[in-house]
Amino acid sequence: MEFAYLGPRGTFTEAALRRLPAAKTATATPMSSIFEILDAVRRGEVDAGFVPIENSQEGTVTVTVDELVGGDPLVIVGEVVLPVTFVLASEKPVGEITTVASMPVALAQVRKYLRRELPNAVVHQALSTAQAAQRAADGEFDAAVCPPFAAEAVGLPVQAFDIGDNPNAATRFVHVVRPTSPPEPSGNDITSLVVYIDYDRVGALLGVLTEFAIRGINLTRIESRPTGEGLGRYAFFLDCTGHLADARMGEALMGLRRICADVRYLGSYPRDHSDKPVPPPAGLSDADFADAAAWLDRLRTGGA
Amino acid sequence: MEFAYLGPRGTFTEAALRRLPAAKTATATPMSSIFEILDAVRRGEVDAGFVPIENSQEGTVTVTVDELVGGDPLVIVGEVVLPVTFVLASEKPVGEITTVASMPVALAQVRKYLRRELPNAVVHQALSTAQAAQRAADGEFDAAVCPPFAAEAVGLPVQAFDIGDNPNAATRFVHVVRPTSPPEPSGNDITSLVVYIDYDRVGALLGVLTEFAIRGINLTRIESRPTGEGLGRYAFFLDCTGHLADARMGEALMGLRRICADVRYLGSYPRDHSDKPVPPPAGLSDADFADAAAWLDRLRTGGA
Amino acid sequence: MEFAYLGPRGTFTEAALRRLPAAKTATATPMSSIFEILDAVRRGEVDAGFVPIENSQEGTVTVTVDELVGGDPLVIVGEVVLPVTFVLASEKPVGEITTVASMPVALAQVRKYLRRELPNAVVHQALSTAQAAQRAADGEFDAAVCPPFAAEAVGLPVQAFDIGDNPNAATRFVHVVRPTSPPEPSGNDITSLVVYIDYDRVGALLGVLTEFAIRGINLTRIESRPTGEGLGRYAFFLDCTGHLADARMGEALMGLRRICADVRYLGSYPRDHSDKPVPPPAGLSDADFADAAAWLDRLRTGGA
Amino acid sequence: MEFAYLGPRGTFTEAALRRLPAAKTATATPMSSIFEILDAVRRGEVDAGFVPIENSQEGTVTVTVDELVGGDPLVIVGEVVLPVTFVLASEKPVGEITTVASMPVALAQVRKYLRRELPNAVVHQALSTAQAAQRAADGEFDAAVCPPFAAEAVGLPVQAFDIGDNPNAATRFVHVVRPTSPPEPSGNDITSLVVYIDYDRVGALLGVLTEFAIRGINLTRIESRPTGEGLGRYAFFLDCTGHLADARMGEALMGLRRICADVRYLGSYPRDHSDKPVPPPAGLSDADFADAAAWLDRLRTGGA
Repeated sequence: MEFAYLGPRGTFTEAALRRLPAAKTATATPMSSIFEILDAVRRGEVDAGFVPIENSQEGTVTVTVDELVGGDPLVIVGEVVLPVTFVLASEKPVGEITTVASMPVALAQVRKYLRRELPNAVVHQALSTAQAAQRAADGEFDAAVCPPFAAEAVGLPVQAFDIGDNPNAATRFVHVVRPTSPPEPSGNDITSLVVYIDYDRVGALLGVLTEFAIRGINLTRIESRPTGEGLGRYAFFLDCTGHLADARMGEALMGLRRICADVRYLGSYPRDHSDKPVPPPAGLSDADFADAAAWLDRLRTGGA
Repeated sequence: MEFAYLGPRGTFTEAALRRLPAAKTATATPMSSIFEILDAVRRGEVDAGFVPIENSQEGTVTVTVDELVGGDPLVIVGEVVLPVTFVLASEKPVGEITTVASMPVALAQVRKYLRRELPNAVVHQALSTAQAAQRAADGEFDAAVCPPFAAEAVGLPVQAFDIGDNPNAATRFVHVVRPTSPPEPSGNDITSLVVYIDYDRVGALLGVLTEFAIRGINLTRIESRPTGEGLGRYAFFLDCTGHLADARMGEALMGLRRICADVRYLGSYPRDHSDKPVPPPAGLSDADFADAAAWLDRLRTGGA
Repeated sequence: MEFAYLGPRGTFTEAALRRLPAAKTATATPMSSIFEILDAVRRGEVDAGFVPIENSQEGTVTVTVDELVGGDPLVIVGEVVLPVTFVLASEKPVGEITTVASMPVALAQVRKYLRRELPNAVVHQALSTAQAAQRAADGEFDAAVCPPFAAEAVGLPVQAFDIGDNPNAATRFVHVVRPTSPPEPSGNDITSLVVYIDYDRVGALLGVLTEFAIRGINLTRIESRPTGEGLGRYAFFLDCTGHLADARMGEALMGLRRICADVRYLGSYPRDHSDKPVPPPAGLSDADFADAAAWLDRLRTGGA
Repeated sequence: MEFAYLGPRGTFTEAALRRLPAAKTATATPMSSIFEILDAVRRGEVDAGFVPIENSQEGTVTVTVDELVGGDPLVIVGEVVLPVTFVLASEKPVGEITTVASMPVALAQVRKYLRRELPNAVVHQALSTAQAAQRAADGEFDAAVCPPFAAEAVGLPVQAFDIGDNPNAATRFVHVVRPTSPPEPSGNDITSLVVYIDYDRVGALLGVLTEFAIRGINLTRIESRPTGEGLGRYAFFLDCTGHLADARMGEALMGLRRICADVRYLGSYPRDHSDKPVPPPAGLSDADFADAAAWLDRLRTGGA
């Protein structure tokens, strides 16, 4: 079993991959772009890909979603939500640091810390946190802002932990494979979709949300995106609570299939960090669907 | 095959029954109340009942609906919509009429005619239009307001035809039997239901209508009715376009079964006076439902 | 102050009128039809009309609603809900009664009682319960089914009280005047409307109900009625909780005015038998509307 | 009048700013982060800020939206939509290029071009397209992928124009000021909002969309975002068609104010590249709102 993941080694993605149960005994190969990874999965060169899809700082990783949607079908079969923490790595104590480096996205996440603790330090941009750590270890800069494992990898001491401005910062990664049936329902699953809608967006979007709402399915993410296929066609990326195998999810998906210009199923998989099963609302369990179907059968065959 | 209908002979109900194809070769037995008729059907003493359910003058015939709903299940398998016309039946020309009789409901429907043409005539109430015609034929009153066939039955000449104030007046009758599978879909059918809803009525009623609206099913009748079973439980009588055998109607009924306190199916049957089949809206044909179900099956088994 | 009501004297309508506070010191004139009463109000011959609008046995009194809607505007400014009770009035004890008379609607409401207690009595129809009582007092029949006051009016003893099959039976009457501003809000009011909708009924009806639902307004009655003005135009009679003076009712009515083919306002008035004020849902009080309007003003003038 | 914009000079942002009518005669000051720019506007150090808010490659510029929402109120009063085009800038003809540099986001947008035309070139990452162009001009790399003006700024010839994979690629920039009343309606305006919703997201989101849909307001963008303020509170960034001054927009905003946990108004402003005014749907013009308000006033004061 071979996973391709977004390299280089020593990044958050590798740290996240180590948490994925399915990757425990797998070979992990770093690749340099999301495109390469998904392409390798599509062509069967690797068994699975592992890529970031959403982070607290930048929202959706649009390139991941676009690459997932833009070619032959792929499905998500797992997710990992990794808390994002930064450290200040330096040979010097904080009071003596005059230059600090990191990649722009990381610098943006520690802005308040730097302003408060290192107001006079000169800030330099690097291409990655791993590169910043290496260049700090090489003495080019006094300090690097990077994840703990990046400091460790180059042997730099940590002068301050958890220096991110947002204590809830996290990145969400997904485990992607060629089309297959989804993992067994865990009782607390996400189903990811892209739906395409034409013309009047509020009315059509109301129709889509209604298919979920009447079946007690919640959304944990919604994002519109122009498709560039002419005026009036829009895509909506949706994460819904529930599993493809649920009766209510099945009926909702069939409803979308009928009313939307197109529906792209992206997978059903267990939520990370959510052990507690969430029972369906009253009247919406598989048993309720079975009862209603049996009743309809009785009516159709002349019973009461 | 034996029908029970609301007598006496010589009423609109008998005239309507003669128009029902299923009653062509049947025996027709008049009974004196809707209760008796439905009770005879329920106990198997007759094969079918034929009763008025709605008229332009008084709206729903509440007693019919209440008796349909209030006991063992019965289903409607046909309807007849009969235009209601009244004549002025008298031995005398209009100019010489000084007294006129009919039942109150009929008098209410010719009020404008009487005020215009017989402003000075004294109006008497009778228990039925047939009784009024008989008493006019007996010389007790100068004239009767009654249907054409009632005048004919007692040999009274007609002095004026079509004297009703509402030219579209009609009564709707239904053919009722013990539970059985519905007649084949005709392409223009009605499905009748009673749904019971608890508590918040607008929100719950919106939920019910949404089940229909998202599947392109229209309502041709809706009427609320307190159930008397404590505060907050209401019944809604609904006539919906479509047939129990339609995929979209089946799914809507299953939805109601799950969200309502109770659902009582009252039958699917062809509309009277409507030969033209009404195609389902785009995306809502049985073929569209089959396509969506096949797509879902593919997804669940790992296809795309 | 002069009221016209549906006579004759000694009926439920007169009994109900006596309960209306506004009629305490008024003159009450019986008239023989709902048409006459509303016509007299419209022409200014009387100050107010008092007519039945709904009863548990027959649902809406369609003729009242049609006459309210069909001419110059009138408004409802009050209601009375009168429990309907029937007695068995006779000079003889129950065991000796062999003939019993009443009007058909009353007989339908005591059917179970008659079947149980007088299974062998011959039942005769009369034109009103008052007439039945008189004819029983005259010795034409052994007994009459009538309201208590009708028995009292002709001096007949009561052999059995409360013989109606439905212990919750009641009739609702309304106090109708020429257009005027509504009575002060009581905290538990009804607003009555007729809305006209064209074409697609579920979608359009959903739109109407949505205007109420998003503002926390409930319906206590809904009834569709074909208008006879060609295919596809329907009227819906609605009773809504709340008062014309409420901000949320005002906004809902303005919404209906914009989306419906027509809206006919029939009045706002306190509910009978409902002393307890019902507070508006969270976020929907007049104060909430005022707060939102003030916020919008601030935004429009450059505040925040 | 002084604008702060996201520098350095020679970027897409400066090119876009030159297209903003309001900036024609203004001083333009480059700053190094979106935070700095908005902070300078908030503190009154500059009159206006100009920042990217959305691009075809990455979707919403989350940091812009977060900074707009996260401090004292600011409002958007204008937008510029700038087509994004890339060139291959080099002293050498395409056939001789062996190394090429650009920033990662730009490289992702020309991936197909590079694979097709320069399959063997080694790709290097730079911190910005301007930096890449400078380093190519300095001879460090053979070529740079950058906007036309960046090539021009460093005097590098263009070997290929319009090499982006997506011909509709564009970036949207906004003109931001301290709270003020919005520019006059142009007939084709956007209103930007953030709404905060608690708990059940589909139901609550349906409520929000319903406020727009019933008033004929469309969404051109929707994006959910966890707020990090505990489970169950979500923010939705919305761009709606219409202007704060429109009656229907005002009523919709008041509705949101009442039903949402919070609403943050971000401005009403004319759409860029959209000269054609879009008339409101039937029944939803300011005149229709005025008519409905006048009707309600008549009812409340006793008219009809």
